[in-house]
Amino acid sequence: MTFQRTQNRAADSLRPVTITRGYTKHAEGSVLIAFGDTKVLCTASVEEKVPPHKRGSGEGWVTAEYGMLPRATHTRGDREAARGKQSGRTQEIQRLIGRSLRCVFDLKKLGERTIHLDCDVLQADGGTRTAAITGAYVAAADAVKWLQKQGLLVESPIREAVAAISVGIVEGTPLLDLEYIEDSACDTDMNVVMTAAGSFVEVQGTAEGAAFTRGDMDRLLALADKGIRELVAAQRKALEG
Amino acid sequence: MTFQRTQNRAADSLRPVTITRGYTKHAEGSVLIAFGDTKVLCTASVEEKVPPHKRGSGEGWVTAEYGMLPRATHTRGDREAARGKQSGRTQEIQRLIGRSLRCVFDLKKLGERTIHLDCDVLQADGGTRTAAITGAYVAAADAVKWLQKQGLLVESPIREAVAAISVGIVEGTPLLDLEYIEDSACDTDMNVVMTAAGSFVEVQGTAEGAAFTRGDMDRLLALADKGIRELVAAQRKALEG
Amino acid sequence: MTFQRTQNRAADSLRPVTITRGYTKHAEGSVLIAFGDTKVLCTASVEEKVPPHKRGSGEGWVTAEYGMLPRATHTRGDREAARGKQSGRTQEIQRLIGRSLRCVFDLKKLGERTIHLDCDVLQADGGTRTAAITGAYVAAADAVKWLQKQGLLVESPIREAVAAISVGIVEGTPLLDLEYIEDSACDTDMNVVMTAAGSFVEVQGTAEGAAFTRGDMDRLLALADKGIRELVAAQRKALEG
Amino acid sequence: MTFQRTQNRAADSLRPVTITRGYTKHAEGSVLIAFGDTKVLCTASVEEKVPPHKRGSGEGWVTAEYGMLPRATHTRGDREAARGKQSGRTQEIQRLIGRSLRCVFDLKKLGERTIHLDCDVLQADGGTRTAAITGAYVAAADAVKWLQKQGLLVESPIREAVAAISVGIVEGTPLLDLEYIEDSACDTDMNVVMTAAGSFVEVQGTAEGAAFTRGDMDRLLALADKGIRELVAAQRKALEG
Amino acid sequence: MTFQRTQNRAADSLRPVTITRGYTKHAEGSVLIAFGDTKVLCTASVEEKVPPHKRGSGEGWVTAEYGMLPRATHTRGDREAARGKQSGRTQEIQRLIGRSLRCVFDLKKLGERTIHLDCDVLQADGGTRTAAITGAYVAAADAVKWLQKQGLLVESPIREAVAAISVGIVEGTPLLDLEYIEDSACDTDMNVVMTAAGSFVEVQGTAEGAAFTRGDMDRLLALADKGIRELVAAQRKALEG
Amino acid sequence: MTFQRTQNRAADSLRPVTITRGYTKHAEGSVLIAFGDTKVLCTASVEEKVPPHKRGSGEGWVTAEYGMLPRATHTRGDREAARGKQSGRTQEIQRLIGRSLRCVFDLKKLGERTIHLDCDVLQADGGTRTAAITGAYVAAADAVKWLQKQGLLVESPIREAVAAISVGIVEGTPLLDLEYIEDSACDTDMNVVMTAAGSFVEVQGTAEGAAFTRGDMDRLLALADKGIRELVAAQRKALEG
Repeated sequence: MTFQRTQNRAADSLRPVTITRGYTKHAEGSVLIAFGDTKVLCTASVEEKVPPHKRGSGEGWVTAEYGMLPRATHTRGDREAARGKQSGRTQEIQRLIGRSLRCVFDLKKLGERTIHLDCDVLQADGGTRTAAITGAYVAAADAVKWLQKQGLLVESPIREAVAAISVGIVEGTPLLDLEYIEDSACDTDMNVVMTAAGSFVEVQGTAEGAAFTRGDMDRLLALADKGIRELVAAQRKALEG
Repeated sequence: MTFQRTQNRAADSLRPVTITRGYTKHAEGSVLIAFGDTKVLCTASVEEKVPPHKRGSGEGWVTAEYGMLPRATHTRGDREAARGKQSGRTQEIQRLIGRSLRCVFDLKKLGERTIHLDCDVLQADGGTRTAAITGAYVAAADAVKWLQKQGLLVESPIREAVAAISVGIVEGTPLLDLEYIEDSACDTDMNVVMTAAGSFVEVQGTAEGAAFTRGDMDRLLALADKGIRELVAAQRKALEG
Repeated sequence: MTFQRTQNRAADSLRPVTITRGYTKHAEGSVLIAFGDTKVLCTASVEEKVPPHKRGSGEGWVTAEYGMLPRATHTRGDREAARGKQSGRTQEIQRLIGRSLRCVFDLKKLGERTIHLDCDVLQADGGTRTAAITGAYVAAADAVKWLQKQGLLVESPIREAVAAISVGIVEGTPLLDLEYIEDSACDTDMNVVMTAAGSFVEVQGTAEGAAFTRGDMDRLLALADKGIRELVAAQRKALEG
Repeated sequence: MTFQRTQNRAADSLRPVTITRGYTKHAEGSVLIAFGDTKVLCTASVEEKVPPHKRGSGEGWVTAEYGMLPRATHTRGDREAARGKQSGRTQEIQRLIGRSLRCVFDLKKLGERTIHLDCDVLQADGGTRTAAITGAYVAAADAVKWLQKQGLLVESPIREAVAAISVGIVEGTPLLDLEYIEDSACDTDMNVVMTAAGSFVEVQGTAEGAAFTRGDMDRLLALADKGIRELVAAQRKALEG
Repeated sequence: MTFQRTQNRAADSLRPVTITRGYTKHAEGSVLIAFGDTKVLCTASVEEKVPPHKRGSGEGWVTAEYGMLPRATHTRGDREAARGKQSGRTQEIQRLIGRSLRCVFDLKKLGERTIHLDCDVLQADGGTRTAAITGAYVAAADAVKWLQKQGLLVESPIREAVAAISVGIVEGTPLLDLEYIEDSACDTDMNVVMTAAGSFVEVQGTAEGAAFTRGDMDRLLALADKGIRELVAAQRKALEG
Repeated sequence: MTFQRTQNRAADSLRPVTITRGYTKHAEGSVLIAFGDTKVLCTASVEEKVPPHKRGSGEGWVTAEYGMLPRATHTRGDREAARGKQSGRTQEIQRLIGRSLRCVFDLKKLGERTIHLDCDVLQADGGTRTAAITGAYVAAADAVKWLQKQGLLVESPIREAVAAISVGIVEGTPLLDLEYIEDSACDTDMNVVMTAAGSFVEVQGTAEGAAFTRGDMDRLLALADKGIRELVAAQRKALEG
């Protein structure tokens, strides 16, 4: 017998995914992405300069920052700006988003400029980092379009799409796209970042309770592969819209 | 001849005001307020405990924090959580919001609990602090309703509504509800916080260029009075909705 | 019946004001100002360089910092340097002092240099920010004289004098220049910064208890106007001495 | 043709592993572990109290901190204590070490006490986090023995051994236990934490250049499995010694 | 031939020392001490509680903090509160002041309360730490008198007076009580803290240029001994006044 | 009757001193020094640039940082990097090490480069700062040899050796080289830094309990002189080895 999901969702189903472009007006790319009740605002800002380690290299840079509004969660969390530092979790997530996006960028083609991706969680219900990566890709694509429209870039520096999804084992059942109550209850939790072509950018699996077997991993990777295909299709559709 | 406003707005007109309750699902009060293109998410969170200076007093506390998403503005600003401290401007604004809301609360009736108001600017176009106060009032009212529905409070501790608006003099013309380009160009800038009954909670007037006269101040206060009446009506309508 | 003030002071009287120039020897301007028992040391330091946002502009800058010695007050406060950050109140006050002084400076005439105003409260008894602004003006004037004596400036960049005073309503009586016990008890508290010509630079009114009416505001502004005239006279006399 | 490793090391060989117990005298467990030229001092400290989230739970806690001496590396790095904060990398690693060790502990059996694992890199040549986890396990086991000898614990709360190793693909060749020059050159980098029984505790794979395929992942996991078996044997031998 | 001092001061002469008690009104002890142009405000604040390491011990605590106003010096220094941390020099000095004062206190007799000594330099011309210690003693003595007057203490917990002076070798001449230009030029700099009875509490000698000999040290200690006797007499006279 | 030391050590004996060069492989100088159970890793790193205050001066700089591993001590101390700041004690010690080493360097001959000395305590048993200075000298000497071997320097900028030792009075007996239990029990504690030629670089004597007399100081300085001679011999032997 398998774990019963909210609203009878199948074990291998994503929550409803919506991708809204142009959510705010100032950013070169601005996307509100929802994975069910998880809502993340992803903006892409173009800056015509690079960090010190890239100066004079002819290459650009893509970087990310992540934040959660204090009451995005069930109980109010401290505001990191007021506490005076970002938590280890926040830093871990923003480093992951940055690496994931850089992996599909040809930094030479981008030229000496930076794309800043800001992923701010307005409402959290599990999977905020995977929604952030998936939405940040669309925001980055819009920023590249803007650069092309401005005549600052001819060819797109983006090699292919990238998306991310969480998978996990709850009460023995492998599930796709965990929501918060599933995430809290799971034995194994895995975040998978993949390209449109089906290759891996990041795999981060963690045993929350007991260690997991090679068979568990194989089942989870197959689920993730299915989810990523659907997310990449949703990104494509949003960008065509 | 007077200053020409965007979209032929009259000197004494507010921008379109929209107040959306229940914008996010976890907070006891969650309001998205828009003053034209300025959009602020105001959440009210109830915590069943008070800060040290109120412990054992039988009184509650109402406090506020303010933040701006990095790309809420024309050019991306530093993320305060990453920089490791809140700017003086941020602290000034959040102290103002907190004082303004406390002024209409009977803290004894609230009982030993805290209402945290988080005002996060999703998009900025002038007047973020006045939109924040006006929206925070609605979020606080919803949190009080929640407390009543939970049976935690019988009588409402809110004495009356409070709202805020900016006024200023641009090229000699007194204007109501400044948007960003007006705010940048103004000689005198005034933020006025008033109650539904028409009394003052805060008045903060600043000469940006030349000092201003008593006559200027009288004209600005009259404009603010008109704007506040309309905002209080909008709050009432939203809360009835 | 009206509120009884310490030493039978009239409702519209300032406390004794003393302004001592040359209080310390290193600064280009060094003034100890006393409003009764409130004593603030204001120094003006000339630096031949400007902050980044003014570089190459041909304009100078005037800025202020404010501090309170730990035992300036009834009970010892934390040392902000030891705590590792300035409070919101401190930042709010130093920003106010800076804006107030810049308002009477012609930054073009100052040339690309900075005047740093340091206002340190040696003893506090209410009105520290208004004493700081009033004293900082005299220190700034001395620094300008020093620049002229050095041959670094011909014409003074100061357009006119600026001074500040607090007013408030205690037990229904409008009072000029609140001392600490009045400040703690007041319903409405207003800080007013004005020029020698009688125009407003800043008005900050706050309802501490109940909101205040337009009539209250008019009475307070009239009191402030009287106080500022006397402070400007005291500044003039000190600078002639 | 495959990548040529230092000292003709085979692609599937670990560097020489040495584990020295009792390296320093004060800690309840103190282990110097070397993976070739990577040397990490791992100490385990017992504290008879738990962090707030475990108080009164009857359960203990296991946590880790990680640091690198400034000149553990080729060029001197900033001292994190002097800079005033730990880098994102440091936090990520110490969170990984903590999770990995907690996974093999029965926190109920540990009782309300904390084991602090401090992993300080004296010399770095790639694989510091995997050496740290492998050494921290031995230090933790010594701390448990100390608790038993003191009569504070009867039964060991450790369920099984845990160890970690890095694997990666360099110039198309999958390699076990990357040293620094290999790590800098690799396309795919994976850190694998496994139990003595061969289950996974953590898998973190990152595409440094191009994304990697499912086939690459399978080859890397097989290599890691071989390495972990050898490390677990080395741990067992050290603990018997 | 010996070094020529300002105003023909003899090599073994102190600068004029003045000690003004009751300089500010709130503190239990408040002393302005001047060693020539060096002026330090020393306040003693009594707090009826002790730091954690003394709780329940029946003993009190004496501690010190030190600060310098930004323009106490020739060129303006950064405000430590604005920079967000105290310099190593500041911490070194305040630890020295605290140890020196604790050395003459019987902490048992003080009872479970703390005396906070705040030493703030209003004007600096060399020897700020020695003036601070010498003045802090007088402030502490006044705080003890206040405790006795309040009936909180019967017997004084102060065993004897403590004072401090700097000595140094400038161009081969041993000098007592260095002023700033001497301090900048000296080869050897020594701060000596002694009790009224002529015993040492602290000796801190530093070779600024070449190392110094045993003979140099003996000459400097003799000079310091003379200076301390005079300072102790000045303290006694001030406390009798 | 005199105080009985561990292992019948004579009052005027050092603990066994060992100096191991080349302890780690990356640094230009890397020394593990042991004074009995006190073990400090001292590395010297050469950087081909100087801090701002030396730029363009033609002179180099020598600076030091000090740290203690969290479990170098009997009970685990907080990690300073995690706490976000270095303690006053740490800063005091690293400033002392830096001054002591600079005193024997001819900074002109060093040229515009910096030698960073990192002294990290692996195990503490009293005297960590004196061991650090003594070991840092050897590491610095090795860095100079490296500079000469690289052809970056012809002549050594080191004028003579420098070493440091602690002395103190325990139960009336003057002792050389205090270990932890002696240090905790001592009435007077003195750290002495001297050159090979027998001159003083730093003398820091502190009365822990009662103040100490001139006679005490003379006895302690004589002991220190003996210890320094032996340490300088050990340094010489290590550098010849």
